[in-house]
Amino acid sequence: MADRNSLIEARLPRGFEDRAPADIAATDRMIATIRQVYERYGFDPMETPFFEYTETLGKFLPDTDRPNAGVFSLQDDDEQWMSLHYDLTAPLARYFAQNYDKLPKPFRSYRAGYVFRNEKPGPGRFRQFMQFDADTVGAAGPEADAEMCMMMADTMDALRLQGKYVVKVNNRKVLDGALEAAGVREDQKLTVLRAIDKLDKFGVEGVQQLLGKGRRDESGDFTKGAELSEHSIAIISSMFEPNIVAVDDAEFKETGDLAGIKIEYGDPHQFRPMFVSLMALGADRINSFVQGRAELEVMRSLFSSAGYGADRIRIDPSVVRGLEYYTGPVFEIELTFPVTNERGEKVVFGSVGGGGRYDGLVSRFRSEPVPATGFSIGVSRLAHALKLTGNLAAEENAGPVVVLVLDRDPAAIADYQKMTSELRQAGIRAEMYLGSSGMNAQMKYADRRNAAAAVIVGSNERAEGKVTIKDLARGAEEAKSIEDRAAYKAAKVGQVVADRNLLVAELSKIPAVARMIQRAGS
Amino acid sequence: MADRNSLIEARLPRGFEDRAPADIAATDRMIATIRQVYERYGFDPMETPFFEYTETLGKFLPDTDRPNAGVFSLQDDDEQWMSLHYDLTAPLARYFAQNYDKLPKPFRSYRAGYVFRNEKPGPGRFRQFMQFDADTVGAAGPEADAEMCMMMADTMDALRLQGKYVVKVNNRKVLDGALEAAGVREDQKLTVLRAIDKLDKFGVEGVQQLLGKGRRDESGDFTKGAELSEHSIAIISSMFEPNIVAVDDAEFKETGDLAGIKIEYGDPHQFRPMFVSLMALGADRINSFVQGRAELEVMRSLFSSAGYGADRIRIDPSVVRGLEYYTGPVFEIELTFPVTNERGEKVVFGSVGGGGRYDGLVSRFRSEPVPATGFSIGVSRLAHALKLTGNLAAEENAGPVVVLVLDRDPAAIADYQKMTSELRQAGIRAEMYLGSSGMNAQMKYADRRNAAAAVIVGSNERAEGKVTIKDLARGAEEAKSIEDRAAYKAAKVGQVVADRNLLVAELSKIPAVARMIQRAGS
Repeated sequence: MADRNSLIEARLPRGFEDRAPADIAATDRMIATIRQVYERYGFDPMETPFFEYTETLGKFLPDTDRPNAGVFSLQDDDEQWMSLHYDLTAPLARYFAQNYDKLPKPFRSYRAGYVFRNEKPGPGRFRQFMQFDADTVGAAGPEADAEMCMMMADTMDALRLQGKYVVKVNNRKVLDGALEAAGVREDQKLTVLRAIDKLDKFGVEGVQQLLGKGRRDESGDFTKGAELSEHSIAIISSMFEPNIVAVDDAEFKETGDLAGIKIEYGDPHQFRPMFVSLMALGADRINSFVQGRAELEVMRSLFSSAGYGADRIRIDPSVVRGLEYYTGPVFEIELTFPVTNERGEKVVFGSVGGGGRYDGLVSRFRSEPVPATGFSIGVSRLAHALKLTGNLAAEENAGPVVVLVLDRDPAAIADYQKMTSELRQAGIRAEMYLGSSGMNAQMKYADRRNAAAAVIVGSNERAEGKVTIKDLARGAEEAKSIEDRAAYKAAKVGQVVADRNLLVAELSKIPAVARMIQRAGS
Repeated sequence: MADRNSLIEARLPRGFEDRAPADIAATDRMIATIRQVYERYGFDPMETPFFEYTETLGKFLPDTDRPNAGVFSLQDDDEQWMSLHYDLTAPLARYFAQNYDKLPKPFRSYRAGYVFRNEKPGPGRFRQFMQFDADTVGAAGPEADAEMCMMMADTMDALRLQGKYVVKVNNRKVLDGALEAAGVREDQKLTVLRAIDKLDKFGVEGVQQLLGKGRRDESGDFTKGAELSEHSIAIISSMFEPNIVAVDDAEFKETGDLAGIKIEYGDPHQFRPMFVSLMALGADRINSFVQGRAELEVMRSLFSSAGYGADRIRIDPSVVRGLEYYTGPVFEIELTFPVTNERGEKVVFGSVGGGGRYDGLVSRFRSEPVPATGFSIGVSRLAHALKLTGNLAAEENAGPVVVLVLDRDPAAIADYQKMTSELRQAGIRAEMYLGSSGMNAQMKYADRRNAAAAVIVGSNERAEGKVTIKDLARGAEEAKSIEDRAAYKAAKVGQVVADRNLLVAELSKIPAVARMIQRAGS
């Protein structure tokens, strides 16, 4: 035992969290459901280690201007820099490149695992969190991207989130084309994309500030903007400004007026006006824009023919995705039900995952082009959402039967141990009390453990070959109707005395115990 | 696409490994079995993050003489040192101390997770590996330790390793007492314990060298010894020297002769001679020895009354366990079946896990004493063992049905996509081919995926409302009896043409597909 002055403070590093049994069990069930959908789609599991060489991972994280910022890195004893993976995509690219010759192509795989971000922690913002990814490497066409979106929609359905989500789709090429049309320079691009990405958070006005001089938040902190001209800001805004009036191609071409275009959110069949406005502004002369637009058209038609309505998957021009490595279609799952934020405001729950096409990532390792697309779910954020909607209710999960230790004679201990073993062999979760406290504290312990029942054998009972069994759930229930504590104790609710050799039979009459036996047999 | 000269080499950091689907699936099944046993014993899951403050973890690793060696550490941006956990016990001690007031006591928990060792990697020696632990914190008596040993034995049985394992038990207090009787100084103790721990590896002579001047291995590397006297080495050797002849207490006390004692390995009822020899050498005057001996006696009687024979759990005086934090009983699971090592020698498979009592670990954080005991299984080592014994055979796991893409017209693609969706909705693993290759390469892809079947629809078939279904398992089977390739192709083995609207019905006739549907429904 340490000296009081030399005690170490028991605390977690900032931005990390411990997980409790209920959270682990609920998340495991959620992951099992997601895995089932992914496997149905023909994906197989694979896993990479937590460390990669730093150069393998590259620098694709958003909001990190310093080299290696955002990543936990350390130098190995041979001087090489290693980093903990910050996502599961960069390691997959390395894996595919390293095992290129022996892998089937396309290579369809999924993986769930922790990733690490060396960022400033905040409320609900952790530096270790779990992602669940699926990727198709070696498939160039938008069919592969469309499949990702449909799989995400099916995953949400499998989690019983029908009507509470939408998968939003955009294309980086379209964004790039629009940016080019707006005269955005290469060095401004990332700032501009990040600004658009903030649409949900800051609204149109906030994004326009970030595209211009900058934005001051409520705390007074100032974020420098991209310093675009008014004209450029207007062109970019035309992608997501919801108040523009719709016109058809021909009419638009004549007026060329930004104020003449309407974007209908929420219907993939209605995303043309956005393109119309951008075409009018010069984007139709830009290759990537035209290509991106064609890809979105193919995806839209696949969604449509496979019966995925706009209530499940829709084109949304404000989707950007923060990571730098995306090269084509990008997508995001948004949960649309309202929640109340820290400031008491009603907001939609928001994104629980996303992904996109990253054709350049494997090509960092190999000279041939290797197209790829994938999707990542934020596991704890989705689990949190499912708790809010009641879709991830805690399963009835009774604690073990506790065999009380009232007689510390070695022969008695051996007998308690034997009873405990018998229960386990019958499929009943059971434990012998292992602390040093007396009867009352042991009963409190059983309550705290949410124990299904307590087995009580004093030295007299032992001599007589009897056991007392207390149904703790029933006892708690009946105690509610007995106000007087003495009367409650006297009533011995939920308590029976049985022959020692009928221990298992008697315990099996308790519903929670019967369910344990049933589960163990299945 | 990168310039060939600027390509990054796709490689893993030394000492880390990727995991393939079959390994992941097999390990998951093994973990599910272990978890079931732990839950039956009343343990609940909990989880801590990968990082802890370095001072929280302490320095308990074996074979690390440099500060922080053996551990991956880095400095946080507030200058505090954090480390990746090297086991799951030190973090549990922090967790228990931090949440002391709200946890039931004793606190019974289990956790499976990766741990990290910053060590020199070698064959089969990885720097990231998975452990599966169970611990009881707040239980002082040897009953808690005995329960751990019995649970480990039950776990091995649940994994169908009956007759192929033994849980070996010793007590650090007995070791300490023996060391004290042998006149080992405090600063020599760790070296001596490590030497004893090497008994399996180097034999009695090797250990005696390590207790004395030192040992030179085959490569010529020299390990410095503890520099004990001949007399001290003889006393310590009396614990594990198997050639000593047995005598009873009385006889021994008279002769006091080391050479008069026999230790019977393998029978817990026979471990007294060891104590006799040590007592004669003065250990019976040493408190810790007497206490440790009494604890082993209690454990032995519990094993005996619960029906665990010496074939499953036995006292073994050579068990040390490498970690420094153990304070009482220590235990180890040894798999006893023979394997052939790298040098072609037959050896027993050896340890797949172990643990012990660590009463001082929580007390580093709190001023009251908090006794604790626990066990850790080396997951990948045990999985490897199960593969060797055939207990972890790969499940029949057919790949998905592959819908070939032979017509790239958008309407045809939409139709392939629709068929794929139909199969999935029926509970069949299915995928549309997403690469850019032709018919032959697509069939090769299906083979490589171990696909249950291929669905083949060319433009003619599509026009006629027909589909061709190829049972790939049957095709492969029948192909064996057809030598001529042309004849094989002409025979169209395992191939049927069906109406488009009978796709699911026809596919369901294939056994592997029928099993998928059955599993999906359960």
